[in-house]
Amino acid sequence: MKDCIVVGAGVSGLVTARELERRGRSVTVLEARDRVGGRTLSPSFGGARLDVGGQWIGPRQRHIAELVRELGLATFPQHHAGSKLLARGEDTVRYGGVFAFPRMSPWAMIDLLLARRRLARSLAELEPERPWASRDARAWDALTFEAWMNKNIRTQGARFLLSNVVRAVVAAEPEEISFLFFLDFLRRGGSLDETVGIPGGAQETRIVEGMQSVSERMASALGEAVHLGEPVRAIHQRDRWVEVITDRETHTGRFVVVSVPPAIAARIRYGVSLGRDRERLMDRLPMGSVIKFVVQYETPFWRQAGLSGEAASDRGIILMTMDATAANGSVAALVAFSLGKQGRYWAKRPPEERKRAALAELTHLFGPKAAHPVRFEEKVWVDDPWTGGCYCAVPGPGTLTSFGDALRASCGRIHWAGCETALEWPGVDGAVESGKRAAGEVQGRLAVETSRTMEVRA
Amino acid sequence: MKDCIVVGAGVSGLVTARELERRGRSVTVLEARDRVGGRTLSPSFGGARLDVGGQWIGPRQRHIAELVRELGLATFPQHHAGSKLLARGEDTVRYGGVFAFPRMSPWAMIDLLLARRRLARSLAELEPERPWASRDARAWDALTFEAWMNKNIRTQGARFLLSNVVRAVVAAEPEEISFLFFLDFLRRGGSLDETVGIPGGAQETRIVEGMQSVSERMASALGEAVHLGEPVRAIHQRDRWVEVITDRETHTGRFVVVSVPPAIAARIRYGVSLGRDRERLMDRLPMGSVIKFVVQYETPFWRQAGLSGEAASDRGIILMTMDATAANGSVAALVAFSLGKQGRYWAKRPPEERKRAALAELTHLFGPKAAHPVRFEEKVWVDDPWTGGCYCAVPGPGTLTSFGDALRASCGRIHWAGCETALEWPGVDGAVESGKRAAGEVQGRLAVETSRTMEVRA
Repeated sequence: MKDCIVVGAGVSGLVTARELERRGRSVTVLEARDRVGGRTLSPSFGGARLDVGGQWIGPRQRHIAELVRELGLATFPQHHAGSKLLARGEDTVRYGGVFAFPRMSPWAMIDLLLARRRLARSLAELEPERPWASRDARAWDALTFEAWMNKNIRTQGARFLLSNVVRAVVAAEPEEISFLFFLDFLRRGGSLDETVGIPGGAQETRIVEGMQSVSERMASALGEAVHLGEPVRAIHQRDRWVEVITDRETHTGRFVVVSVPPAIAARIRYGVSLGRDRERLMDRLPMGSVIKFVVQYETPFWRQAGLSGEAASDRGIILMTMDATAANGSVAALVAFSLGKQGRYWAKRPPEERKRAALAELTHLFGPKAAHPVRFEEKVWVDDPWTGGCYCAVPGPGTLTSFGDALRASCGRIHWAGCETALEWPGVDGAVESGKRAAGEVQGRLAVETSRTMEVRA
Repeated sequence: MKDCIVVGAGVSGLVTARELERRGRSVTVLEARDRVGGRTLSPSFGGARLDVGGQWIGPRQRHIAELVRELGLATFPQHHAGSKLLARGEDTVRYGGVFAFPRMSPWAMIDLLLARRRLARSLAELEPERPWASRDARAWDALTFEAWMNKNIRTQGARFLLSNVVRAVVAAEPEEISFLFFLDFLRRGGSLDETVGIPGGAQETRIVEGMQSVSERMASALGEAVHLGEPVRAIHQRDRWVEVITDRETHTGRFVVVSVPPAIAARIRYGVSLGRDRERLMDRLPMGSVIKFVVQYETPFWRQAGLSGEAASDRGIILMTMDATAANGSVAALVAFSLGKQGRYWAKRPPEERKRAALAELTHLFGPKAAHPVRFEEKVWVDDPWTGGCYCAVPGPGTLTSFGDALRASCGRIHWAGCETALEWPGVDGAVESGKRAAGEVQGRLAVETSRTMEVRA
């Protein structure tokens, strides 16, 4: 019997296990895949590992930053020097330097600034840990972000930009998500600008060794406690322990922490019902839709042309790109994203067609050199059976105000981790934070039960 | 080894089994509950059984009508003589007779008539079996019904009425559902008027013996083929058969038909992956939120006061009511619904508080006699672990155009039934239709495999 069984060896699960082990508790981590890292994945491109999963650390993201330091990993700034590109139809606009925003009409600019101020004012009124308990929560959760834009945005330019912000940061469409959810997302990011920004923003820093190294280092310290290729099928709660059933065996522990996305957690069978709120919550948390491309080139030719590698496009397969070159420059690369309904559409096309279309779009943006990559890697997260999408769950209207409290509420001896349960940034940082929280909860209950047992013995 | 294992003894599952058995095929039906009927449930109120689940048959609903006849059940018209009530805040308006609509401003009336015409024009353009393949499907699936109203409705009166139509017919909020889904819902109903109407509409006819009798009669003819209290946990596909695992035993069959709601089907473990489209679809089909109250009184006192029993209200717990008196008049009753976010809210309140609030609202609508029922029955479908809500699944924007084709597509030896897979009316009628379709699919494949086996033998 272990003190705790952890389901999922992504960042949140491994942090849970690491924190408990540090306090002298015994743990087993059960991972369905044959690798650790969950939504982080860093294949090797010869000289360097580049991220086709979670990638960035922002200045507010102290949990992951601290962990990276503790694990002895190195960081480096996301490249952003140079001009950015904005492609709409056949027009491609180059901007940057003194222009913080792409060239837009003065009306669109004013519209955007007003919208930004309105968002800032609203997000300041959110209750940090339970946004669904905020004063205006019911009204905000009864709006999609699309509906909010319909009421608050007057120009096509501002709408185009904000819609792409939504797609870029939550990988869903403005009409799919609750305004309350998105507002709280911006609150966690600090502001609209910090959420989308590179320097001073959520895309500020990368990890030299690749983000998956975070999980790998934790897993290697945990050693044989981490079991790969062992998907959890059922969790049965007994009076004083839990049984966690995999294809291979039945693990018993005093507690269990489930640290997989809610829609995946719904696929586990629970011997004791989790209750209405948790069950209905899990019905209502589909994942965002992401395909991430990392395309390696001989040289970072865009830098030579004065471009930063950042681009936004409404032309088809790629919504945004960034420079993905390795820290030491040994591997030159661009990263590109297909997001939201675009991501769902392209997930269904044959890989060759996807590659052809992605390279055509990169060529449209960055010129003919982009047509000839050294290597083309893609990760279709929508197809991944153990996350069901990326980056994280995207609640539609009504979900958080009806069932938000079930996100972190333990169900008997089952506790929940994963970036969906984070109090702060709902990405890798939130995964770390949630793992610490879940470990704290379990540690607290273990302490109580141990002291009770000692009392009984005395 | 059976020819077919059916998961779920609701209407669709039992029709599947019945149709296959008629053609000489062997079946087993596995039901999680200790009763048959799924989303239909007809407790006895002394002299008669009244419906706290699926209840009505409309004139277009030929599949259920035919089945009811075959089973020797009797029907009778839903009572609708008398005035209707519309409560908004403290105002209660009585209307009816020559007024098809409640008293509204001429502007609201014109607004509503224009909206109705616009809806009719759009729904005529839908492709019947695959609305997601219609010409304008992408645009319509990128709107919530709320967003459609924002563009097309100018008056508060028309918006109030249409919002309540949405809540009444799909048990979800206008901002939660895809416009494409709702438009297709109206198309299946024939029109807006037929979908919400009593005479000539989807609420035209009731079953004397209660809707659950449909399932009970089918189950009794199937005899020992129907297993109650045996939830299916896993389905493993082999080369030439399937293994269906319950808590009690492993059933083997050549094919399996899963006839439970998609969000419940997602809880079954599939040994062979169902593939991206089916998996992502199941992540995205939450159920509507319904509490159904049936309140028995000494007499149908509202009829004596010239009221039909129909009411709509925006005041709190009850969105709509109808007369629920038994066919022979032996039991007088009203049926009332709590729907959408209202249903989710009230599902969380203690039963006594719910009863108090519901009776207070009925009293507000129908007068002091409504405060003293003979009996108060409720069914909180949101809490039901084997449907997860009612009446049916409610896709948000993007789901149908991205994954609609997976609704009915078989996955290896697994076929799908249930009203979510219906081509026509997505209620009890669609359950019957989908059961026939699934049985036809399985029968076709059984015929092919049998002839192949005979060829090999020859």
